[in-house]
Amino acid sequence: MKNFVGRDIPDCLLAGGREVYQGKNAKDGVYFTKAGPRVRRCEKPVETKVVPTLKEALLRCGAHDGMTVSFHHHLRDGDYVVNLTVATLFEELGLKDITIAATSLGSAHDPVAEYIRQGKVVGIQTSGIRGKVGEAVSRGELKTPAVIRSHGGRPRAIEAGELHIDIAFVAAPTADSMGNCRGVGGKSDCGSLGYAMTDARFADHVVVVTDTLVPFPNYPASVEAIDVDCVVVVDSIGDPKKIASAAARMTENPRDLMMAESAARVMAATPYFRDGFSFQTGVGGPSLAVNRFLTPLMEERGIQMGWAIGGICTSMVEMLKQGLVGQIIDVQDFDLGAVESIHRTPGHYEMSASQYANPANKGAFVNRLDFVILSALEIDVDFNVNVLTGSDGVLRGAPGGHPDTAAGSKCCIIVTPLVRGRMATVCDHVVTVTTPGDCVDVLVTDYGVAVNPLRADLIACLDAAGIPHVTIQSLRDRAYGIVGVPDELQWQDKVVAVVEARDGTILDVVRQIKPYTFDGTATP
Amino acid sequence: MKNFVGRDIPDCLLAGGREVYQGKNAKDGVYFTKAGPRVRRCEKPVETKVVPTLKEALLRCGAHDGMTVSFHHHLRDGDYVVNLTVATLFEELGLKDITIAATSLGSAHDPVAEYIRQGKVVGIQTSGIRGKVGEAVSRGELKTPAVIRSHGGRPRAIEAGELHIDIAFVAAPTADSMGNCRGVGGKSDCGSLGYAMTDARFADHVVVVTDTLVPFPNYPASVEAIDVDCVVVVDSIGDPKKIASAAARMTENPRDLMMAESAARVMAATPYFRDGFSFQTGVGGPSLAVNRFLTPLMEERGIQMGWAIGGICTSMVEMLKQGLVGQIIDVQDFDLGAVESIHRTPGHYEMSASQYANPANKGAFVNRLDFVILSALEIDVDFNVNVLTGSDGVLRGAPGGHPDTAAGSKCCIIVTPLVRGRMATVCDHVVTVTTPGDCVDVLVTDYGVAVNPLRADLIACLDAAGIPHVTIQSLRDRAYGIVGVPDELQWQDKVVAVVEARDGTILDVVRQIKPYTFDGTATP
Repeated sequence: MKNFVGRDIPDCLLAGGREVYQGKNAKDGVYFTKAGPRVRRCEKPVETKVVPTLKEALLRCGAHDGMTVSFHHHLRDGDYVVNLTVATLFEELGLKDITIAATSLGSAHDPVAEYIRQGKVVGIQTSGIRGKVGEAVSRGELKTPAVIRSHGGRPRAIEAGELHIDIAFVAAPTADSMGNCRGVGGKSDCGSLGYAMTDARFADHVVVVTDTLVPFPNYPASVEAIDVDCVVVVDSIGDPKKIASAAARMTENPRDLMMAESAARVMAATPYFRDGFSFQTGVGGPSLAVNRFLTPLMEERGIQMGWAIGGICTSMVEMLKQGLVGQIIDVQDFDLGAVESIHRTPGHYEMSASQYANPANKGAFVNRLDFVILSALEIDVDFNVNVLTGSDGVLRGAPGGHPDTAAGSKCCIIVTPLVRGRMATVCDHVVTVTTPGDCVDVLVTDYGVAVNPLRADLIACLDAAGIPHVTIQSLRDRAYGIVGVPDELQWQDKVVAVVEARDGTILDVVRQIKPYTFDGTATP
Repeated sequence: MKNFVGRDIPDCLLAGGREVYQGKNAKDGVYFTKAGPRVRRCEKPVETKVVPTLKEALLRCGAHDGMTVSFHHHLRDGDYVVNLTVATLFEELGLKDITIAATSLGSAHDPVAEYIRQGKVVGIQTSGIRGKVGEAVSRGELKTPAVIRSHGGRPRAIEAGELHIDIAFVAAPTADSMGNCRGVGGKSDCGSLGYAMTDARFADHVVVVTDTLVPFPNYPASVEAIDVDCVVVVDSIGDPKKIASAAARMTENPRDLMMAESAARVMAATPYFRDGFSFQTGVGGPSLAVNRFLTPLMEERGIQMGWAIGGICTSMVEMLKQGLVGQIIDVQDFDLGAVESIHRTPGHYEMSASQYANPANKGAFVNRLDFVILSALEIDVDFNVNVLTGSDGVLRGAPGGHPDTAAGSKCCIIVTPLVRGRMATVCDHVVTVTTPGDCVDVLVTDYGVAVNPLRADLIACLDAAGIPHVTIQSLRDRAYGIVGVPDELQWQDKVVAVVEARDGTILDVVRQIKPYTFDGTATP
């Protein structure tokens, strides 16, 4: 069945009442009953929940074949906890048929690919999928299609009971003996623990893995002891150097700066650029650089930003400290400046993944966003965006909060160069739709600006402000004129991944790529 | 069927698999599936959730005959929100068969008694029940037995699906237009909103009632917008003078001071009186005065209190500021000093009712308590305590956190004078068991100390410290010697209230009192 963005979704995936994507907000107002975990009552006081090994924790939590384990990615490329856990599951406990539900998987988790190949990991549910895991899934080695969700779609799926977590693992920079966790105060600090918060509340069992045990109570707790079964103390939960880098360097690339300035001017041309406006931006070069160009425009108008959300980096913290933004509400920290600020700088607070972006609660923060600046691997003439699959069709990206902020914000601006290397970024059809075009408002490239025709109001704003803009088709033509029309990718029939829209419908599928077009570094 | 504390529970109450109390921690380790509310997805951004009237909010939330509405009691005797709401339910919407599930009801809610009499309120679930509501229930006017739960038993019942809330009302000192609530920053501040937190997460619908609308986001939020359907702005949510009083005056009553000193000496004789110990005390005269006598004993030993929990008052905040206690984790504030401290004094944090005392989560704060000092209306020779019914059998009390802290703490000390007026406090059989004797360790009276024989370890500690103690039977004899043996109360058959143990079993029942023994001020 073709869905709202024209993707053909195989009928076999629509068993059990699953639906295809029907457009932004199609599920608004629908009632559903939240799922509840199956949990163990701890009436009798215990002196400690610390157990000596991960194996012991897994046994106490009823680890079994066929279960789903969850992880969060605040430790980013420095994470050790996923690999420690899967090694325990398979090498020490000899379990099989395990599904890994992670908020994101990256190159730090390359060892998981081998367990996929061996058929021990049979399911992957994640937002980000990169490195060898992405290649293994793209090669069709995973027994079931991977499920790709946004950061808001994941808590939605958890709360709806579609993703049931048997054991959630919390990688905690600090924890007390009862399991109260915080992302600051240890030797592997990551700041916000926002993605772990929802997992911990809805998992049957919760295991905290920490390298820094602190006195009870470790408060205010991001993950609360009332949800935690066991605490395991390990030598190190991650490599601090890879968890949080020094402040993301501001780009000096003239092309990036030009696009950033252009995006800022687009923002300033809309009615949403008023005192108290809200904002999210990424950490990529041109996205981050938007902050630099926003500041003089804000000063010119005599306005301040009310609040900013998202993955947070130093640049935004500096704006908070300078009084340019009123509050930062933070689901993940991208660099040391942000890690060191959260819970310490007045106005810099933590939020859960559900508060951030869940489309099925009663109004996540993304619903109140005025602006979001996002990047894209590809964007097509219907404004559909791909941030998941490479031009070779291999999984090597992450929807993250992209579909959520695009859907919730009043003005979603995609900033991307027209071509990257030999690839056209603006194209006829993206390889995979990860953010539907009805959620995207403006495209800013180094060759001009295009506005989604659905947003006649924004077109009028840009005209009134004297900001030139062109059709997205003309940008595609320009891109194809530079690098040529791309060859069609050659797919096999097998679906290796399902891209779930944030509302739980099916937005797209990723099929197995034909071997000869596979340019992954691993042998096909 | 007779239960563990010897109370005869009518079989008709045990339909549907309900059980009688079987002793402390009998349900430890049992697995159960948490209930989930039926909630409405708000994918599509809305500009505001503010609606003009309570009636409008109730209509939007599907108010209907037979539903259960919930309230919290942080505004205490100053609360206006219960009465505003029930008036809207009955006078404007003409609803019937309503159950009120409140964390506590007091004299501020006397108007509810008339709706009970009219048969419009058919169920009451609460911890505290006083004033005209208690009298109406005691007279048998409520169609179903009232359900009396502890502050930990309530979140347990909610999470187990035994108490399903159709609409929760949050009385919020401040709220933003999306429903993020805080207990500070308004004109009717109450500090902690701990009891409202669990209700808001598990109710189908949540209505925030505030008199101070603040800019979005009102952060960090105690009740989160993601759980809130509507916000109603009213002139006043309560009478600030009755919400939080000036600091509870330290008693100068020599009898109270003697008992307080005795309780402090008992504490110091136990092995739990060590650096980092944890503590909860009430605000009653002798309970609060314990703090005064603890301080020199702590200084003498060179130790500090690690943390304190509970309903909090100025005396504990002062100890925090002086460095005598490390942290305060706070579910409710009893006076202005506590209200003004929470969220402001470093180390003074808020917690939910579930974090505080729920026996069915994975370890509430009460499970880590070393000491709790509690009062009693009556205590019997089996150490069972009554804090609910008066000597006339009328409902005029509140279990509150009494059964939870008694069960969780290592050393539960009841402090009470031997007689009050013409009534023996220590007796053969309490009118109603609200805290079972197997949770109570020491009784301190103005005529001596008694230790529960179950605690041979504590008896040895007191002996070693040279603290004299007697049997509780001898204290009863002494009490009866002073005021005489009380007449047996004359009950009718009708059960007017069920006292639920914190684990969900039935601890006792309260029957309708025979009219001639009823000494309530209202006409029987």
